[in-house]
Amino acid sequence: HSIHTSSPRFIGHMTSSLPYFFRPLSKLMTALNQNVVKVETAKSFSPYERQALSMLHRLIYMYPEDFYERNVQDGKSTLGIMVSGGTVANITAMWCARNIALGPNGVFKGVEQEGLSSALKYYGYESAVIIGSEAMHYSFEKAASVLGIGLDGLIKVPTDNKNCIDLGILREVIVKCRSKNKCIIAIVGIAGTTDSGSIDPIREMAEIASEEKIYFHVDAAWGGPVLFSEKHRHKLSGIEFADSVTIDGHKQLYLPMGSGMIILRNPNTAKSIEKKALYIIRPDSSDLGKRSFEGSRPGMALFLHTALNLIGFKGYGFLIEEGIRKAKFMMQCINSRPEFEALIEPDINILTYRYIPEFLREKVRSGMLTEQDNEVINLFNKRLQKAQRKAGYSFTSRTTLTATRYGKNVPVVSLRAVLANPLTTEEDIEAVLDDQVRLAQNL
Amino acid sequence: HSIHTSSPRFIGHMTSSLPYFFRPLSKLMTALNQNVVKVETAKSFSPYERQALSMLHRLIYMYPEDFYERNVQDGKSTLGIMVSGGTVANITAMWCARNIALGPNGVFKGVEQEGLSSALKYYGYESAVIIGSEAMHYSFEKAASVLGIGLDGLIKVPTDNKNCIDLGILREVIVKCRSKNKCIIAIVGIAGTTDSGSIDPIREMAEIASEEKIYFHVDAAWGGPVLFSEKHRHKLSGIEFADSVTIDGHKQLYLPMGSGMIILRNPNTAKSIEKKALYIIRPDSSDLGKRSFEGSRPGMALFLHTALNLIGFKGYGFLIEEGIRKAKFMMQCINSRPEFEALIEPDINILTYRYIPEFLREKVRSGMLTEQDNEVINLFNKRLQKAQRKAGYSFTSRTTLTATRYGKNVPVVSLRAVLANPLTTEEDIEAVLDDQVRLAQNL
Repeated sequence: HSIHTSSPRFIGHMTSSLPYFFRPLSKLMTALNQNVVKVETAKSFSPYERQALSMLHRLIYMYPEDFYERNVQDGKSTLGIMVSGGTVANITAMWCARNIALGPNGVFKGVEQEGLSSALKYYGYESAVIIGSEAMHYSFEKAASVLGIGLDGLIKVPTDNKNCIDLGILREVIVKCRSKNKCIIAIVGIAGTTDSGSIDPIREMAEIASEEKIYFHVDAAWGGPVLFSEKHRHKLSGIEFADSVTIDGHKQLYLPMGSGMIILRNPNTAKSIEKKALYIIRPDSSDLGKRSFEGSRPGMALFLHTALNLIGFKGYGFLIEEGIRKAKFMMQCINSRPEFEALIEPDINILTYRYIPEFLREKVRSGMLTEQDNEVINLFNKRLQKAQRKAGYSFTSRTTLTATRYGKNVPVVSLRAVLANPLTTEEDIEAVLDDQVRLAQNL
Repeated sequence: HSIHTSSPRFIGHMTSSLPYFFRPLSKLMTALNQNVVKVETAKSFSPYERQALSMLHRLIYMYPEDFYERNVQDGKSTLGIMVSGGTVANITAMWCARNIALGPNGVFKGVEQEGLSSALKYYGYESAVIIGSEAMHYSFEKAASVLGIGLDGLIKVPTDNKNCIDLGILREVIVKCRSKNKCIIAIVGIAGTTDSGSIDPIREMAEIASEEKIYFHVDAAWGGPVLFSEKHRHKLSGIEFADSVTIDGHKQLYLPMGSGMIILRNPNTAKSIEKKALYIIRPDSSDLGKRSFEGSRPGMALFLHTALNLIGFKGYGFLIEEGIRKAKFMMQCINSRPEFEALIEPDINILTYRYIPEFLREKVRSGMLTEQDNEVINLFNKRLQKAQRKAGYSFTSRTTLTATRYGKNVPVVSLRAVLANPLTTEEDIEAVLDDQVRLAQNL
């Protein structure tokens, strides 16, 4: 009953097959069983982790060589933090942002010391908010609630029909928050939404954040590795202005489950969350536990470092380009088959589409679908996806979209293909669609 | 430069060697690469994880059989949550406690929805606090700051000279918090402090918490597995009244790094942190991501479940008993050698002691040490521990204690031995002490 993560026709998950070399490597990691919280228990792993994260820092921020010479192994600098996954990475980013927005000031010792209620009182704010699009990953709901901001403080800006944040409304929201005396902790941009892989207008968001002096975080858990491709990295243009960036190693870096990371533009950002005066973590040490969310943790950087060397920047670039190429191919197949309707124009390698029962195809073509018709199609696609999962020959996942041409008020059940498995061929893609057509005919 | 975690003479870390079967098992886990956030990507792992955690629930709470029949695989119940480590486990526990203490009430939608500042206002509290002893793990500092309570809200009750919480002062602190209108989020008991392995008077703390209607959490990250030993489980007596218990798999369960867990007495406790209405986690699913801190994560329950079956409850009981037996043996060695002074009477398998330079031994025996003498001894032990680490033949760690017979105002630098490696023999223990004596003579 395990999911066959490496099947080239199971193109619905963000969890994919792994390069073979991770198997012996994970055995090695278990045998060494180092603990990266302290240098003492990870004498080699700590500098190794710092180095691997700085490679990703360079990929995003491209600072001059001497910046890296100074900061990579300097215990006072933090270019990145490894965590167990994108959720903890996003929570860590919002933790830094909260502590910077409501930091120490005169007699006030900062939110970290005195708590959120005192911080808002001291600064004279009504409440605190985090702003991003409605396509934000639900880890931001966890962040808002864990950090004491509350779900009411998570402001979701509507997306356009490409599932990207509406910049006009974002600007309005900021003005409104300011006029209502709300502290804006951070603006969140998305580089690859979970449902459709859409990329927010990062550059414009960065400009707004910079003008308004607001912390800017980019959740590139999925799309971050697009930066490896010379051909496609412009899609994330402006990410170099983000204060922090989340990347999930276990997604498009093809590392084993459980390796998220946050990369920080400013080497001092993580000082806002540093725990000092600890009996276990001495203040002058290079212990990685000093400025991390987690305590004891495994040396996942072994996987990251090895992959960055064995697969390499070029190898990752190739994988990204292949994924996007296959997504385009699949899009063409979908557009050329009367059975399907594409739903959101893909930015990268995630496709959303649906099956249209024959008697409604003419109405789709002429744009005459009623809300009721859409409900019929929704039910059909739900059943189709379940049937496909049950049959077990191929797999796409399912999501519900409101960012389609049918407008915000019409939720559209969508099939979702993730083209990230290097083993998936054009033949496999056709086979997945054939499978869906065949199953639909028997529903 | 890796730490030789399996060396029987490296008895200073809580990270130990692992049974051999984890190596092929970790290879298998990497090959399967399941994601436990959703049932869809972990069809076998999700029920497996629920089962493994319920075995630990039974170990702690020993409810009748029909309780487990009803709850183990019921998606509405949560008997435990796997996380990446003890820090996230403790933060999760405090998150639950905070949300229960400041939950929805009438028009107020709860701290999770409306935020901490509104919650305190609604309930008429000045601030919120977490109470535990000064020996609390520093993850509670992270919890207090992350959750918006602030470090000022972490109240550290002094310990006695066994490094256990002073119950009289705990009672006073509660009265004082109540009179100052502070919301007590939780009382934290420790079953095995990080520095000396001391176990708080859990039963008495549970009674106080129950009388005062306060959430009671036990951080048994280190000491939890003592429950496996029929001979020693009485040391944690009263833990069955804790609302939640933290256990670290990668400590005395000998699992690979990165497996913490929280066990919950009430199957509904985790509902306080549940994220509903998520596009990815459907509300009626059995997805484990619904009530967990983290999102995507590896199937570490494979390690836990296998170990609970291969090592078994009896095997773990034996390991615990051996550790405590060896600690007693080492204590005898320390007491019989004039070079050493034992510092805190051990509850389980962590020993704190120090080397006394010859010219001060008489003063130690007669209890005439001055503060200055203690500083001299402190410096000496710091140098000794560093010399031992550098020589690399044996290893104990180092901590600074204030819970010794010298009183709160005299910080005592201590050598710290952790007797958890099954391969460590009495001969090894003598060799570690011999090594220290030899090194001390050349300092």
